Amino acid sequence: MILTKNHLDKAINTVDGLVHQTPVLTSSALNEMAGAQVYFKCENFQKMGAFKMRGATNAIQNLSKEQKAAGVVTHSSGNFGQAVALAAKNLGVTAYVVMPENAPSVKKEAVKGYGAIITECESTLKAREETSAKIQQETGATFLHPSNNLDVILGNATAGVELLHKYPELDYLLVPVGGGGLLAGTALAAKYFGNNCNVIGGEPFAADDAYRSLQSGKIETNASANTVADGLRTNLGDLNFPIIQELVSEIIRVEEDEIVEAMKHIWQRMKIIIEPSCAVPFAAVLREKEKFQYKKIGIILSGGNVDVMNLPF
Amino acid sequence: MILTKNHLDKAINTVDGLVHQTPVLTSSALNEMAGAQVYFKCENFQKMGAFKMRGATNAIQNLSKEQKAAGVVTHSSGNFGQAVALAAKNLGVTAYVVMPENAPSVKKEAVKGYGAIITECESTLKAREETSAKIQQETGATFLHPSNNLDVILGNATAGVELLHKYPELDYLLVPVGGGGLLAGTALAAKYFGNNCNVIGGEPFAADDAYRSLQSGKIETNASANTVADGLRTNLGDLNFPIIQELVSEIIRVEEDEIVEAMKHIWQRMKIIIEPSCAVPFAAVLREKEKFQYKKIGIILSGGNVDVMNLPF
Repeated sequence: MILTKNHLDKAINTVDGLVHQTPVLTSSALNEMAGAQVYFKCENFQKMGAFKMRGATNAIQNLSKEQKAAGVVTHSSGNFGQAVALAAKNLGVTAYVVMPENAPSVKKEAVKGYGAIITECESTLKAREETSAKIQQETGATFLHPSNNLDVILGNATAGVELLHKYPELDYLLVPVGGGGLLAGTALAAKYFGNNCNVIGGEPFAADDAYRSLQSGKIETNASANTVADGLRTNLGDLNFPIIQELVSEIIRVEEDEIVEAMKHIWQRMKIIIEPSCAVPFAAVLREKEKFQYKKIGIILSGGNVDVMNLPF
Repeated sequence: MILTKNHLDKAINTVDGLVHQTPVLTSSALNEMAGAQVYFKCENFQKMGAFKMRGATNAIQNLSKEQKAAGVVTHSSGNFGQAVALAAKNLGVTAYVVMPENAPSVKKEAVKGYGAIITECESTLKAREETSAKIQQETGATFLHPSNNLDVILGNATAGVELLHKYPELDYLLVPVGGGGLLAGTALAAKYFGNNCNVIGGEPFAADDAYRSLQSGKIETNASANTVADGLRTNLGDLNFPIIQELVSEIIRVEEDEIVEAMKHIWQRMKIIIEPSCAVPFAAVLREKEKFQYKKIGIILSGGNVDVMNLPF
């Protein structure tokens, strides 16, 4: 494993004080529903509303003084753009965020509110990458990938570490898998801080590239990704996939209606707001109840940045 | 004051272990919006989802052995029915809950789920009272009023006590006012555990009976109560009104759109689910910003039992 416990210890120190130590919530109603003990790590309460704050903070803080002076750039229509914007602001670094023209104005406003410089482009991946590359060339800013970056992965890992620190005897740790940065990080957390803790990814059937990648042994992509879990449409990367291959025991796939039902259960029983993507692991637990019966399960609730005016139920 | 610190100390001991010590959350975004330090006591995370669990638990636990054996009865279309049902179940007491026929089936299911015996009646207050009285006569059950009952008031007070225990230097404590049971209890908490802490009620203009009652010196009623804050449509009672008169410095009224806006801010920024009624105090803080500038404010988020399929925004 390329990333050691020392790397992880360093990341824990790096983000300490710069990100929230989020609470862990439980619900007797949801435990009863699952037939298991479920510990929800509430990254929806993280700064800017998602675990991505951890990876962005670790990655920016690990830049050299010269790199920090030149700024950072990313392209994102989702949480990572906000995370880079806020983490950069907190560390006195200039952030350039490339966003598709058709990104919801509420997301553009959030990124702008955190003080980042937004450049709009067409909504294709090609246009985003070219626009980012141009900004890199012109400013010398360092490009930060949302999930395929070792410092981002290590930063993400700190959520699982905090959870295992509080509940060291978890049998399972479940997280959603999109680009793979949270899954890889959480797998490292379990390897170095768990006690035989199995890490499982939750993924929509409608975007099951990670499931298929583990089966085939190479990074697969999604021909389409028509899922309510809009944070999980992306593919694995060459840095996180080997970690996932080595350390993740299983990917459980769930149907769209299972995601929406799990999201509603968490909203109604726990009284907290989570994104659809974030409901996927609990949907997986409900889908495979027998597997998890009487077990201690940690779930990282990855984020809460949902448009409350436009809910999937 | 008829209720002493000894009464309150006893209530704290009585509910200890039977209700959750709910967390206190803060949000830098909402602090910035308010220009103040706001500490939100999350009774939306309380058992059954509302502070009413505290009053119901204290009232039932204070019954004699004989009274407990005969059961308890209440009429409610809202949170108090659920609170009595669950508190009674936890204490091994039979609960009879009178509910209007047209109460949402989700509420009936919740009360039934907690093991209470439901009797349906017409939706008028007269029908509810008559049905309750009949059950009292037939079973010997003790009637519990949702807000005009000293043990309920003392139980409710424990939320404010916990908040002041954690943050003893609060300048203000704000709660919504409907039947007055939470406001009276919180006023007692501030009297005995605060340090010059002013208690203020928040109330919709559309159901401002408490405001008018404090003005006129007698209990006023609402000719109509067409407010989104459906938990605040009820009137004060002869047991809680004198406490409120003596201890509450002010009632701030807010418009309907201010309630909905405050609710949205809390949902979006804090990622927690609260009822519309529960948003009224924060709406009051935003309405009277100058008054609260730079102050330390405690707000009791009274409950989170909202129908997520039917939101006011």
